[in-house]
Amino acid sequence: MSGNSLGQLFRLTTWGESHGPEIGCVIDGCPPGLALGEADIQPWVDRRRPGQSRFTTQRREADRVRIVAGVFEGQTTGAPIALVIVNQDSRSKDYDDIRDAFRPGHADYTYIAKYGLRDHRGGGRSSARETAMRVAAGAVARKVLGAGVVIRGAVTQIGPHAVDRDCWDWDETARNPFFAPDAAIVPEWERFLDDVRKRGSSAGAVVEVVAEGVPAGLGEPVYDRLDADLAKAMMSINAVKGVEIGAGFAAAAMGGEEAGDEMRMKDGRVTFLSNDAGGVLGGISTGQDIVVRFAVKPTSSIRTPKRSVDRHGHDIEIATLGRHDPCVGIRATPVGEAMLALTLADHLLRHRGQCGG
Amino acid sequence: MSGNSLGQLFRLTTWGESHGPEIGCVIDGCPPGLALGEADIQPWVDRRRPGQSRFTTQRREADRVRIVAGVFEGQTTGAPIALVIVNQDSRSKDYDDIRDAFRPGHADYTYIAKYGLRDHRGGGRSSARETAMRVAAGAVARKVLGAGVVIRGAVTQIGPHAVDRDCWDWDETARNPFFAPDAAIVPEWERFLDDVRKRGSSAGAVVEVVAEGVPAGLGEPVYDRLDADLAKAMMSINAVKGVEIGAGFAAAAMGGEEAGDEMRMKDGRVTFLSNDAGGVLGGISTGQDIVVRFAVKPTSSIRTPKRSVDRHGHDIEIATLGRHDPCVGIRATPVGEAMLALTLADHLLRHRGQCGG
Amino acid sequence: MSGNSLGQLFRLTTWGESHGPEIGCVIDGCPPGLALGEADIQPWVDRRRPGQSRFTTQRREADRVRIVAGVFEGQTTGAPIALVIVNQDSRSKDYDDIRDAFRPGHADYTYIAKYGLRDHRGGGRSSARETAMRVAAGAVARKVLGAGVVIRGAVTQIGPHAVDRDCWDWDETARNPFFAPDAAIVPEWERFLDDVRKRGSSAGAVVEVVAEGVPAGLGEPVYDRLDADLAKAMMSINAVKGVEIGAGFAAAAMGGEEAGDEMRMKDGRVTFLSNDAGGVLGGISTGQDIVVRFAVKPTSSIRTPKRSVDRHGHDIEIATLGRHDPCVGIRATPVGEAMLALTLADHLLRHRGQCGG
Amino acid sequence: MSGNSLGQLFRLTTWGESHGPEIGCVIDGCPPGLALGEADIQPWVDRRRPGQSRFTTQRREADRVRIVAGVFEGQTTGAPIALVIVNQDSRSKDYDDIRDAFRPGHADYTYIAKYGLRDHRGGGRSSARETAMRVAAGAVARKVLGAGVVIRGAVTQIGPHAVDRDCWDWDETARNPFFAPDAAIVPEWERFLDDVRKRGSSAGAVVEVVAEGVPAGLGEPVYDRLDADLAKAMMSINAVKGVEIGAGFAAAAMGGEEAGDEMRMKDGRVTFLSNDAGGVLGGISTGQDIVVRFAVKPTSSIRTPKRSVDRHGHDIEIATLGRHDPCVGIRATPVGEAMLALTLADHLLRHRGQCGG
Repeated sequence: MSGNSLGQLFRLTTWGESHGPEIGCVIDGCPPGLALGEADIQPWVDRRRPGQSRFTTQRREADRVRIVAGVFEGQTTGAPIALVIVNQDSRSKDYDDIRDAFRPGHADYTYIAKYGLRDHRGGGRSSARETAMRVAAGAVARKVLGAGVVIRGAVTQIGPHAVDRDCWDWDETARNPFFAPDAAIVPEWERFLDDVRKRGSSAGAVVEVVAEGVPAGLGEPVYDRLDADLAKAMMSINAVKGVEIGAGFAAAAMGGEEAGDEMRMKDGRVTFLSNDAGGVLGGISTGQDIVVRFAVKPTSSIRTPKRSVDRHGHDIEIATLGRHDPCVGIRATPVGEAMLALTLADHLLRHRGQCGG
Repeated sequence: MSGNSLGQLFRLTTWGESHGPEIGCVIDGCPPGLALGEADIQPWVDRRRPGQSRFTTQRREADRVRIVAGVFEGQTTGAPIALVIVNQDSRSKDYDDIRDAFRPGHADYTYIAKYGLRDHRGGGRSSARETAMRVAAGAVARKVLGAGVVIRGAVTQIGPHAVDRDCWDWDETARNPFFAPDAAIVPEWERFLDDVRKRGSSAGAVVEVVAEGVPAGLGEPVYDRLDADLAKAMMSINAVKGVEIGAGFAAAAMGGEEAGDEMRMKDGRVTFLSNDAGGVLGGISTGQDIVVRFAVKPTSSIRTPKRSVDRHGHDIEIATLGRHDPCVGIRATPVGEAMLALTLADHLLRHRGQCGG
Repeated sequence: MSGNSLGQLFRLTTWGESHGPEIGCVIDGCPPGLALGEADIQPWVDRRRPGQSRFTTQRREADRVRIVAGVFEGQTTGAPIALVIVNQDSRSKDYDDIRDAFRPGHADYTYIAKYGLRDHRGGGRSSARETAMRVAAGAVARKVLGAGVVIRGAVTQIGPHAVDRDCWDWDETARNPFFAPDAAIVPEWERFLDDVRKRGSSAGAVVEVVAEGVPAGLGEPVYDRLDADLAKAMMSINAVKGVEIGAGFAAAAMGGEEAGDEMRMKDGRVTFLSNDAGGVLGGISTGQDIVVRFAVKPTSSIRTPKRSVDRHGHDIEIATLGRHDPCVGIRATPVGEAMLALTLADHLLRHRGQCGG
Repeated sequence: MSGNSLGQLFRLTTWGESHGPEIGCVIDGCPPGLALGEADIQPWVDRRRPGQSRFTTQRREADRVRIVAGVFEGQTTGAPIALVIVNQDSRSKDYDDIRDAFRPGHADYTYIAKYGLRDHRGGGRSSARETAMRVAAGAVARKVLGAGVVIRGAVTQIGPHAVDRDCWDWDETARNPFFAPDAAIVPEWERFLDDVRKRGSSAGAVVEVVAEGVPAGLGEPVYDRLDADLAKAMMSINAVKGVEIGAGFAAAAMGGEEAGDEMRMKDGRVTFLSNDAGGVLGGISTGQDIVVRFAVKPTSSIRTPKRSVDRHGHDIEIATLGRHDPCVGIRATPVGEAMLALTLADHLLRHRGQCGG
């Protein structure tokens, strides 16, 4: 219960440090009888893997996922599923000179404040490397949700440059290194990020993740609302500073006539005429697309020196020379998808537990 | 575990419907030996009470909180604290004609989708009335945090009209019916909301809640991050559609040099030169102010008729004639404060459990 | 999470002190659509009510249960169910002289050791009065389990006098004040307990609770085994010092040929030829009767003076003159039944959550 | 939350099957700054290791524990501690003919009833092999408790042969293969178990585990009582059918004068004159020794054929020819110690969380 688990019935626990020998996770509560093999997981992990373009970190990790428990003869057994990835390209030496330094924007200072010590190598547990296991577990969650639920993510803004939502094309997200849903923005982002990299800086981003095909009725009232759990799930991704559902912050400026998606019967089914709710009303899914957006701050590790302090109470200047993503928002996209899948899978089982079928 | 509890060690469970005989809550895990009486709770609940200005619902509730367990001779005993408020002004008849109708923007449809039935009177459990108990429990959480932690909230935007942050004055929030921290905006909001009411419409808002004096080191890594739990806490408030910490969504447009609050030693202590992090790094408090903002959609209950459907699959038009807040964001302010207090109290105890003192 | 809740999906939280104004509970996670009224609960609570024979405490409590939330038009709504009983006959004065004394066998000393203070009136929270809410909640659990699951309890031993299991008759348990399943033991127990009362002493007991009709497949492997959760549930009843399932401690003396219930097909169904397992194998129900037994120590409150100490570090002699059960094991019977029902209902929902149908 | 985790703040999750590639565990919530290395864990695991005498299974496992996360430069970091053991001597072929058979006394039938499929190799997840990780985690729990808390276990009965408690000598438990605290019983148990083995049978046992030095005040009232959590912990060990605390079932036959340990001041401290309570009153530790006893049924895997059925609904005869402990109670002793340590460590942190220091 010390913060490394997510979910109530479909429960993920991750372990491992950025520069330890391995990282891994345990998924407890997975329904039995689901077809599952490493080939079902690896493609999702590959989408998040570093080093695939010049816009992400150059750390080289095969990120080969191994299933070491919970699957027998190609099927989940209901026992805890254990997944492991061996760390390969961890250059701990890169971090020797930050052993006692507090990098601005990082968890260095807060880990010392909390625990009195820290594994400084690559950020230890606070590293985004941990999110590889989220993506792996998210692949299992997709199996639980079944083929009827489609979960996709896209980057909608990098730095100040946002996509044109009218040009949204999900297929495009697979064709560029940014998960951009708008082909026209790609060269713009390339120029922008090349410049950012050259200046030794970094950029923020906004990511949108969407789940189609989610049945109405998932989520709990009051505290464990589906949207509340999604807000937590997304805010738990490294560097995320904001989360919104549906119309989000724009809803503040709306009037009551605009907001409140109207309904009509269509082919015998309840149909919504808009989706400002983002697929959630009163904490429970409406059957419309679940639409979640989150803001990612710029990578804190930059080459430009910044003012800081060290453990011994000295003022220092610090620049980060390791291998880092100039825009962590890009690789946060598959992570956001995974968090959406994990949250939905948990609520699917919770709903079934309380309300049956 | 069906969603009506919040927190792990300092754990709040609420119960009761808008138009049932009583609403109440149980707070389990409160430290023993805290001085606590009804007089410590009532003033906070009064700030949220309806009917205090023409800009909130005219439902008349004394909202008198009674402590029925867990306190002995003026001190908490470590046993569960039970609080109860009797519902007085519940006009269930007002709701007879929406018994089978699904009001747009409300949880009517999703409750039926989930449970197959619902207590339609005043929204039942999905009513914002439940938040009275959050505020009451938040008063207990403040006791746990102690006088050194000061938690305050302000409305920063109503409809499209935002306050001027340069004119921020916390004291001003107690002098106007909007919790506005900027005296200049008050007449503007009055005009705007009077117009909104006249048109039978409603308005959205943005609320900011801030905790000063929080020690560094609270929060957990990875999933139960302090900011993640805050995001969940705020998103669990009725009508909230977005949450941000510190710079929030604005961080997406920043460059790495701007973001990442720099540090310097000052009087022998680590001092941050800015607070874009909103007081949280790597999920753990930095010792700076915790700054959280959330967006509230316009009240869904408006007099203007909207298109909808009913349980029998008929298309209908629906207008809401009951007594409602034209801008629920206003009364959401004390609720947001309470959620901040509750989340911090829980993390204070969690930190003490794992790390001691 | 401070110990006043039981269950994961069907979750009971109780509150209230023996001599406070009210006691109550919240049941969260109850499936919607169950027919439920106070008349479904009261009869079970009445079976535990004090003052029904000379063999139980003479405290007079109507123990009238009121449903204050979670039920609408006679059906559970899926919202938290809140139940309340008003305390009537609480003579706090009876306890004035034990305010600072530690009664042997009571929680007086440990509450002070833990919390630094205690509500000494009638044992406060450690009083068996709390179990009234367990019985009330157990009645709701029975609704969840449905009519196919029959849960019954019997006292099998009082002091050194055990029933003859060959004469077991469930119907008999309703005909005597001891829940004895063997008519022949009744006069023996009467004589024994009358003597115990006259001597100002008290007696221990063994209680057996049985659930028939439980489907195979309930329970979880490893830690949350059905039998492990039952052991916890029973051991959490006041004064219980031992729990066993099926053959229990007698299994230690068995050989491998005797233990290990054999199976045969009968009418196309798997049938067990014995039930030493008590209906649980590997933590999961077999479909046989669930059989649990627990030992209750003699009431610690006796008129015979005992040596003890007080808060000020003085040696004292202490006798208890209040109204007490000479054998708390008797009224523990409906409580044990309730704990069995609550545990099964929770596992029923957990099973449905993970494994469906 | 599917049953493979134990504890709230000091939380153990285990994974892995008897005949899978590895078994492992994650310990979340461990306090930071504890000195911990593999050498602190291995000796405890070695005590449980199979193949150390002719009275335990002949399966050969080095059971070498590897720390793969959560420890940095010899200290716990507060991050999840991950431990792994590679399975070496798993002869899955031994189990080919029970693939579709339900062994009496095993979880074969119930796993199929619950999950619809099972990993039949060596019992998969229901194998006692899982307990190796409990012992490993228990070693970490001992670190949390500190050197002041001493946890020891002994076998007090094998088959019908019980030790003479007057001859109890803890040191003796390290000198014989039975963890017997009484030298005189050793040759008797040798003869008895040799005969049991020759007959292809098995024997039950009773194990007692004791914690000295536990401070008063640990445990929670009502449901999460220390004794209730201990009952669950012990009952969750494979083959355990009964648990008792202190006087246990014998308390049922006691009178009120005998039970209820009296107190006297001695050297300025509260001292108990007996320990029928087993160190727990009202669910909270008294400062006396915590004394827990549990009954272990005879190994279900025996060479003598027994009647059973298979998945296809056929009546069969089944004998088990694999390598098994003739008395699983022996190796359950270090497991019981571990469960005691784990439960106490969790309650130590819980107490510190709610009540401080």
